[in-house]
Amino acid sequence: MSEKNVRLGIIGLGTQGGMYAGVISEGRVPGMTLGAIADVDPAKKELAAEKHPGVPFYDDHLAMLDSGDVDAVVTTVPHFLHPEMTITAIGKGIHTLTEKPAGVYTKQVEEMNAFAAEHPETTFAIMFNQRTNPVYTDLKALIDSGELGALRHTSWIITTWWRPQGYYDQSEWRATWGGEGGGVLVNQAPHQLDLWQWLCGTPQKVFAKLAFGFRRDIATEDEVNALVDFGDGATGHFMTSTNDIIGTDRLEMLFDKGKIVVDSSKKVTVYRLTEDERALSDTLSMQDVARLFRGEVDPSDTYTVEEKEYESAWGQQHIDVLSNFAAHVNDGTPLIADGAEGINGVRLASGMQLSAWTGREIDLVDYPAEEYLAELNRRIEAEGKFGARS
Amino acid sequence: MSEKNVRLGIIGLGTQGGMYAGVISEGRVPGMTLGAIADVDPAKKELAAEKHPGVPFYDDHLAMLDSGDVDAVVTTVPHFLHPEMTITAIGKGIHTLTEKPAGVYTKQVEEMNAFAAEHPETTFAIMFNQRTNPVYTDLKALIDSGELGALRHTSWIITTWWRPQGYYDQSEWRATWGGEGGGVLVNQAPHQLDLWQWLCGTPQKVFAKLAFGFRRDIATEDEVNALVDFGDGATGHFMTSTNDIIGTDRLEMLFDKGKIVVDSSKKVTVYRLTEDERALSDTLSMQDVARLFRGEVDPSDTYTVEEKEYESAWGQQHIDVLSNFAAHVNDGTPLIADGAEGINGVRLASGMQLSAWTGREIDLVDYPAEEYLAELNRRIEAEGKFGARS
Repeated sequence: MSEKNVRLGIIGLGTQGGMYAGVISEGRVPGMTLGAIADVDPAKKELAAEKHPGVPFYDDHLAMLDSGDVDAVVTTVPHFLHPEMTITAIGKGIHTLTEKPAGVYTKQVEEMNAFAAEHPETTFAIMFNQRTNPVYTDLKALIDSGELGALRHTSWIITTWWRPQGYYDQSEWRATWGGEGGGVLVNQAPHQLDLWQWLCGTPQKVFAKLAFGFRRDIATEDEVNALVDFGDGATGHFMTSTNDIIGTDRLEMLFDKGKIVVDSSKKVTVYRLTEDERALSDTLSMQDVARLFRGEVDPSDTYTVEEKEYESAWGQQHIDVLSNFAAHVNDGTPLIADGAEGINGVRLASGMQLSAWTGREIDLVDYPAEEYLAELNRRIEAEGKFGARS
Repeated sequence: MSEKNVRLGIIGLGTQGGMYAGVISEGRVPGMTLGAIADVDPAKKELAAEKHPGVPFYDDHLAMLDSGDVDAVVTTVPHFLHPEMTITAIGKGIHTLTEKPAGVYTKQVEEMNAFAAEHPETTFAIMFNQRTNPVYTDLKALIDSGELGALRHTSWIITTWWRPQGYYDQSEWRATWGGEGGGVLVNQAPHQLDLWQWLCGTPQKVFAKLAFGFRRDIATEDEVNALVDFGDGATGHFMTSTNDIIGTDRLEMLFDKGKIVVDSSKKVTVYRLTEDERALSDTLSMQDVARLFRGEVDPSDTYTVEEKEYESAWGQQHIDVLSNFAAHVNDGTPLIADGAEGINGVRLASGMQLSAWTGREIDLVDYPAEEYLAELNRRIEAEGKFGARS
């Protein structure tokens, strides 16, 4: 490895891989240069030569891994391939930034995580770019500080992932069981599933209603309404879809000592109670309650309201994760998202699918990984386009 | 019955009954006068004499029903009593406006509805006062017009029902299984449960997470997070609690041809698509999709936005229902809320409780009424304060 310079290999020169290659070539990612590009599609060789002259191109990612041209790779390939490519790369001592989602089913992600854990000298990170959005970075710090106390409930309606039919018709694998392993839960919503559990904690159980091919001609889900249990009475609601052209992005979190509402991932309102809500409740006498009902007590005296509007930080997010990945390799800077954390979102997404398929609430702690895989394979086989998974 | 004048008897001179007696005495309810008052509490006799001199007082509602002083009654008494008092009154030919909720368990409400159906000459209505709120009246008309098409999903977060501990400590029966049969679902949220199913349709299934005595020292639920299935892939989310001092009231409904968002039961935003969203989705070519992702297509061209702010209509609502009830008795004006419709909210509330107790999704069409009652009685017996129900 070059000193303080990570030579990144791009596996898959699609939209995402092309964007990463571009920002690295432009020198926008400190501590990182473009080492090589690999793609199985011969047409991409020409594209690479045109856009990145002089950068080695491989039609086989294994050849690139062995070439000595790269210190690290990013896996911008279909979701099912993330775990196996990550295992291969780490096995060769190549630092790996895996794309989200970490995988489709937890069994393969667990194998990846276990393998990576045996190779701590090789960096293993995941592209959860939205964790770098200052909206969520600030909220993560606020919640982790303990100032707001324990979570009571949360709801995230995230339907800004509108995708028209033409989007699905672009490729054979999109929104199929065998090619993608799901719909909105696997492709679009993994960002929010990660942020949600990052902010609120890992859910213990999930019950979900999914509609498959609801308002799109696809095999998988374009409509999701889910309920999770965080334990100790705390619960959460998550709703997403790709069929809402208007789109809502609204996150609410109620805590013992306050409340947070985030609109459009931009406007944050933080309510801070003067003390724990239960203490406030207990100090009111029955006479106070009577006054409250006569409108003589104003509950808004018990809290402050802080509103903050953030600029959109979309363009910078991927660059921030790439820089952080390079900094971790170069000097041990803590990762924004350790690769091993990717399993939480995968368990949640696949748990929602399994719940919808079986009509049962799914235990996410003692998770039925084999049952999920068997159900997924039944759908892959019925679809008949791709091979079953193991 | 006096011609064009309904002499109303109040059963239960509590907060609600006292308010009704007041507005009727002040002549604010056209076609209705205060006929008599009944209350089992001797202290109320004095109160009635002071506030409503000359109005007959009975310590037994049966005596009032037989007195000839009243043409109609309203049942402002604990929820369990609504069905049995309604049956008694209707059996005596007395028009009845039952309070919400219609009851606690569907078995008793079904008996009430069946009995009322056998006596169509006697008016049977229910106090769903929030149906008179112009916010919801206008939305009901819009949705029923079919302009927005079929429902896709909905979410209502209604946590503006803050109740401090002192509220629960006022009476022995509050938020007990035997005295009230539930917490926020039975006392506060029935308004929204009714409005929700009135606007969105009757759910077919429900799965819910309830926390009992979560942040209050009570036996029943002060925290609810529920998921419903309307059939054909349409789903809904309902979240309520009495422990959010800040309070949220936000209703969202997505339809095939538009979307409605209601904030604080006052601000309504209606989005109208130029055509069905699926048709809009289908007309975009793959080239259009590429342009969309490059930011060259603006989806907001496909819809209009109408915002409307309503005045608070709180004070007038009960008067409107009382007037409508009188008008129905006097000249057959259609009821705002037929008494028989009260069962929908009761089935939904008790279905949420049963789901939380059993961990199962509950069928609301083939509803397990006997199982609910058995589970409720188990809790009443364990509580040991009130008798079991049948």
